[in-house]
Amino acid sequence: MSKTMKGFGIIVPNKETGWVNKEIPKVEPFEALLSPVAVCPCTSDVDGARIRGVAAGRILGHEAVGRIEAVGSMVKDFKVGDIVAVPAVTPKWYDIGIQEGLHQHLSRPLGGRFLSSQWDGVFGEYFKVPDVDMNVALLPEGVTLSSGVLVGDMVTTGFHGAELADIKFGDTVVVIGIGPVGLMSVAGAALRGAARIIAVGNRPVTRQLAMEYGATETISYKDGPIYDQVMELTGNRPVDSVIIAGGTTANIAEAYRMTKTAGTIANIAGQDSDFILKASESQSFVTHKTLTGGLCPGGRRRLERLLDLVRYGKLDVDKLISHSFNGFEKIEDAFHLMADNPSDVVKPIVYM
Amino acid sequence: MSKTMKGFGIIVPNKETGWVNKEIPKVEPFEALLSPVAVCPCTSDVDGARIRGVAAGRILGHEAVGRIEAVGSMVKDFKVGDIVAVPAVTPKWYDIGIQEGLHQHLSRPLGGRFLSSQWDGVFGEYFKVPDVDMNVALLPEGVTLSSGVLVGDMVTTGFHGAELADIKFGDTVVVIGIGPVGLMSVAGAALRGAARIIAVGNRPVTRQLAMEYGATETISYKDGPIYDQVMELTGNRPVDSVIIAGGTTANIAEAYRMTKTAGTIANIAGQDSDFILKASESQSFVTHKTLTGGLCPGGRRRLERLLDLVRYGKLDVDKLISHSFNGFEKIEDAFHLMADNPSDVVKPIVYM
Amino acid sequence: MSKTMKGFGIIVPNKETGWVNKEIPKVEPFEALLSPVAVCPCTSDVDGARIRGVAAGRILGHEAVGRIEAVGSMVKDFKVGDIVAVPAVTPKWYDIGIQEGLHQHLSRPLGGRFLSSQWDGVFGEYFKVPDVDMNVALLPEGVTLSSGVLVGDMVTTGFHGAELADIKFGDTVVVIGIGPVGLMSVAGAALRGAARIIAVGNRPVTRQLAMEYGATETISYKDGPIYDQVMELTGNRPVDSVIIAGGTTANIAEAYRMTKTAGTIANIAGQDSDFILKASESQSFVTHKTLTGGLCPGGRRRLERLLDLVRYGKLDVDKLISHSFNGFEKIEDAFHLMADNPSDVVKPIVYM
Amino acid sequence: MSKTMKGFGIIVPNKETGWVNKEIPKVEPFEALLSPVAVCPCTSDVDGARIRGVAAGRILGHEAVGRIEAVGSMVKDFKVGDIVAVPAVTPKWYDIGIQEGLHQHLSRPLGGRFLSSQWDGVFGEYFKVPDVDMNVALLPEGVTLSSGVLVGDMVTTGFHGAELADIKFGDTVVVIGIGPVGLMSVAGAALRGAARIIAVGNRPVTRQLAMEYGATETISYKDGPIYDQVMELTGNRPVDSVIIAGGTTANIAEAYRMTKTAGTIANIAGQDSDFILKASESQSFVTHKTLTGGLCPGGRRRLERLLDLVRYGKLDVDKLISHSFNGFEKIEDAFHLMADNPSDVVKPIVYM
Repeated sequence: MSKTMKGFGIIVPNKETGWVNKEIPKVEPFEALLSPVAVCPCTSDVDGARIRGVAAGRILGHEAVGRIEAVGSMVKDFKVGDIVAVPAVTPKWYDIGIQEGLHQHLSRPLGGRFLSSQWDGVFGEYFKVPDVDMNVALLPEGVTLSSGVLVGDMVTTGFHGAELADIKFGDTVVVIGIGPVGLMSVAGAALRGAARIIAVGNRPVTRQLAMEYGATETISYKDGPIYDQVMELTGNRPVDSVIIAGGTTANIAEAYRMTKTAGTIANIAGQDSDFILKASESQSFVTHKTLTGGLCPGGRRRLERLLDLVRYGKLDVDKLISHSFNGFEKIEDAFHLMADNPSDVVKPIVYM
Repeated sequence: MSKTMKGFGIIVPNKETGWVNKEIPKVEPFEALLSPVAVCPCTSDVDGARIRGVAAGRILGHEAVGRIEAVGSMVKDFKVGDIVAVPAVTPKWYDIGIQEGLHQHLSRPLGGRFLSSQWDGVFGEYFKVPDVDMNVALLPEGVTLSSGVLVGDMVTTGFHGAELADIKFGDTVVVIGIGPVGLMSVAGAALRGAARIIAVGNRPVTRQLAMEYGATETISYKDGPIYDQVMELTGNRPVDSVIIAGGTTANIAEAYRMTKTAGTIANIAGQDSDFILKASESQSFVTHKTLTGGLCPGGRRRLERLLDLVRYGKLDVDKLISHSFNGFEKIEDAFHLMADNPSDVVKPIVYM
Repeated sequence: MSKTMKGFGIIVPNKETGWVNKEIPKVEPFEALLSPVAVCPCTSDVDGARIRGVAAGRILGHEAVGRIEAVGSMVKDFKVGDIVAVPAVTPKWYDIGIQEGLHQHLSRPLGGRFLSSQWDGVFGEYFKVPDVDMNVALLPEGVTLSSGVLVGDMVTTGFHGAELADIKFGDTVVVIGIGPVGLMSVAGAALRGAARIIAVGNRPVTRQLAMEYGATETISYKDGPIYDQVMELTGNRPVDSVIIAGGTTANIAEAYRMTKTAGTIANIAGQDSDFILKASESQSFVTHKTLTGGLCPGGRRRLERLLDLVRYGKLDVDKLISHSFNGFEKIEDAFHLMADNPSDVVKPIVYM
Repeated sequence: MSKTMKGFGIIVPNKETGWVNKEIPKVEPFEALLSPVAVCPCTSDVDGARIRGVAAGRILGHEAVGRIEAVGSMVKDFKVGDIVAVPAVTPKWYDIGIQEGLHQHLSRPLGGRFLSSQWDGVFGEYFKVPDVDMNVALLPEGVTLSSGVLVGDMVTTGFHGAELADIKFGDTVVVIGIGPVGLMSVAGAALRGAARIIAVGNRPVTRQLAMEYGATETISYKDGPIYDQVMELTGNRPVDSVIIAGGTTANIAEAYRMTKTAGTIANIAGQDSDFILKASESQSFVTHKTLTGGLCPGGRRRLERLLDLVRYGKLDVDKLISHSFNGFEKIEDAFHLMADNPSDVVKPIVYM
């Protein structure tokens, strides 16, 4: 292969995106070099490019199915030509932080993200993955490329919301924010046994999808305070848990109000505003309401399990794909579609 | 009402069942008297009548929807004429045992069962329920009588297996025994997010239903050792958990073998044989395999939540009903059908 | 007995306390009437009288050992003359809320508190306790009166902080606020296996007691930001959990900063100010830091277990008693001592 | 250094132990070579040599403080000359099994043990440790050599029993078997907040130590069935949990009987006999009694936390040392002392 490659990424931080030229990464012993087979842009790519100051030259993208092009000397389970799903969280597992419990963070917060965070992402002609035996999964027969791309970020993140919400059989759960991640929180809540799932969003396309994924009602924040609408639906009965998959920190405060004593608020969104809980809600802190949240799990076994849900017919994730592109160069169009976010977009995908 | 009633129950313990005459129970302050609207016989009625020595004169039955005919002086939430689902487990809640955690047992093992256990069951013209405000639930609009009967025993028991099995998204779960309870463990496992569910049973009708409830494969214990068949399906990979919903204690030993390190074996069946785990499997005790199990949860809130699963379309439990009868006297036929258990029976129901 | 009694309580809400005359409460079937044998004032009595608007005429006090003077018709386990420990939380247990899990709250937040909250407290010549078989515990032989008074509020509350903090063997835990409740959080953290316990307080007497109860270091908020002092002690390593047993909501924000990824913040204090978490700390919401907290557990079995800790020599709670009074009228002095809170006060007690 | 070393190990499997000559192990990139500074023999060394068929030539020993003599090219945190505690469980962490949860087992049961299991142990002049940055801990200042040796096996194992037993404040716990591991289960149960701890052993020296470590009573299996003795002590009240730290599988059956509904039986002993639970106890399987157990956790962070318990004065583990030897050759005497197990032996140590 040539020594250089191009990729779609940051030209001027928080200002301009475009195509960059980079050296093809050198593969270290536990790593693999992959070429993208299918990729999706993510709202966090957009945020990274517009407000979170990702550095100039960095190639974006962390949702992909890839083809293995080269493997390091210590790689045992994968070989050149393998088609693999790549998750958004691909930790270096030989890290003392793993002994504290959560591989998403390791020795530092969010330390398990590499693609587009600590090194170049999947919107390049090539990209490398650390600890490849521990982080990628063969795409099983019968699982589509799009499912392979979506499980590693949309599904694992949305489902993590349902995991953190500690759902019991028959619970009533509110999901605030029903972009693709929130839709997967709806699906995840249904797959944890929630009975009633109230999805909060505005766009007809996502409200329709929410119903297909297991929501029993949808409401729009444009129709009044979420709290009021939820209480009207439940007859003023607080809900068992709230999953926050979008919006601002104001949603967390609203979630405190609508959650029952000893209920759970699970946050999987990245908010950028001050969080204020009024003294009038301060009883929240002595009534066993629990607030938790965090970055999705990654790694190979997680991915294999989520792929099993698709493979065994328990989850149809492909309904999230609203727009398809063909050709590497179309990454740019797909990114801008995600950035512009017209009302009919859920998730664009680019096939190479 | 007349002072006496008839009911179907025990004539000679472990020998003969038939119709008995009893006084209509007197209603204490926290109790209600109900008449049955729909009832199902249960294999534990059959076992109670045949091998577990239920006493002469006891009326059987603990699965019902009933009509409230009288309420005690302390009852607040229900009134004469209400149509309510009645669960198999109806504890007296004012019991110090509740402070240890599990209302199924209270101050003594299985102490939360009253109907057909500590007093007469639902196969009488009338039956009474203790602590009625805490134990029954209004049948919601749109929920069928049969669903109302089934949630209180088949669903809560089968689902409890899935709860105890500590299922995670994407797990592979084996369900041994797919009578109506086991079928609900299959459904429950699917509703906790299991990907692959291997159901072990023999009869075509239940194997077919298992597939409809979320099983991905079914195997028969008549086709060889369960362990061997499961390992063949998984490529010798131990499974995440096993739910035991029938069979003998030999199934528990087999479950130990097929469960992964740190996996869980959840038992919801009542076995009557010695349990033997061979020394050759003794490593089971140092590899964090966990064996647990127990009687299903009951009570009103549990019932309301399970009814919500039906009401909001997450569970279609009526498929369990294989035979329907009409008329109180037909309880006898339904019981004998359950006892004879021909190959096409899943669950008979009697509507009054 | 005479028909009336006197008690120390509220003359003018948020303004004046003093002696009131009330009718002796009538005992309902599940209740008991007690006379106080020993009582302690609590800071929440002081707050109730000064800022939380407890109503005129209400008798204060919820920490007591009492003598049973009369029992209702349904009481089985206690009789006149029994000397019992009475916890601050004495729920009515026949409540559907119990089926949601936490008896502290039942059908409404904090609904498990009766004494001095929903009816008159223990600073009267008589007081009544609901559901007495479920709520009080015989004072075991060899356990002092003061221990009996302290377990039902100081110990159960402080220890609840340690329970909620999810402490593992060898953890480093910070306890913010070391009044008597915080001191019991220190003791509780030690009894859950924490290795290093950093106690935050100012007064020499409580700092000394903190060390005796298992703290390994104490710091004062007067010596600089708590965060800075903790980080200096740990060499900038975040701590495993923080228990907040006093102070303001600002302490919660500070706790977020010093807690490790996936660590826990457990709040057992009642704050009355807005809680603000700056956007700069917003990563807190995606790093699996968990905030929880709530009112202490009550009830008889809880109390019996905590009394067992004293009885079997695992906890010496009497060291909390800094001042002793003799005679019912001295409740007033003890209350004012607690309210004035001179630097040598930890916990005053009044023996009758 | 010379190319060969001697070590104490297996001459004839299950028959003869003695001194063997081996090549000094070659250090791979993530490994370190250590020389022992202090070591203890373990009953599992004795069992390995006598009944479990450890292979000829294998050097025994897995409890040590060592001096680092050489480090592999990838080692970052340790250097030649460091004095470190070495735990019995030292996994290779770059293993997909870690993603299932328990590092003790990794991809195969007990796979986290290397020393004396998968390669030569610490009774050699040199021994190597895999993944050294992840597995050993600097001996903190002020912590004795003996404490450093004991935390890595006796403490982590005994404490793991207390962890698995799911102890709550004020619980009553039975510990069956009070060799050094069981004594640490006693200490661990006390440090999890158990109130009453009934220790089952026979020898005066260990019964005395049990009391010092927090037992409230000791009983001997020579004085009658353990069940009967425990029930006599508790007034026939079942206990909250049982930790099995020795004996045979018969103890597990006995533990089922004495454990309360929904209680836990935690096994940390390696039994070599069939386990039989009689049908008469079969209710055990429907009363939510939970049986679990497993090999102790290892790794660096675990070790650091346990060392913190010693360092901060929460645990005095040195009381376990009953006999001390000086000089490498004395490993043989120490091993035979452990094997003969006269009544005054708790734990022998050998200082180099």
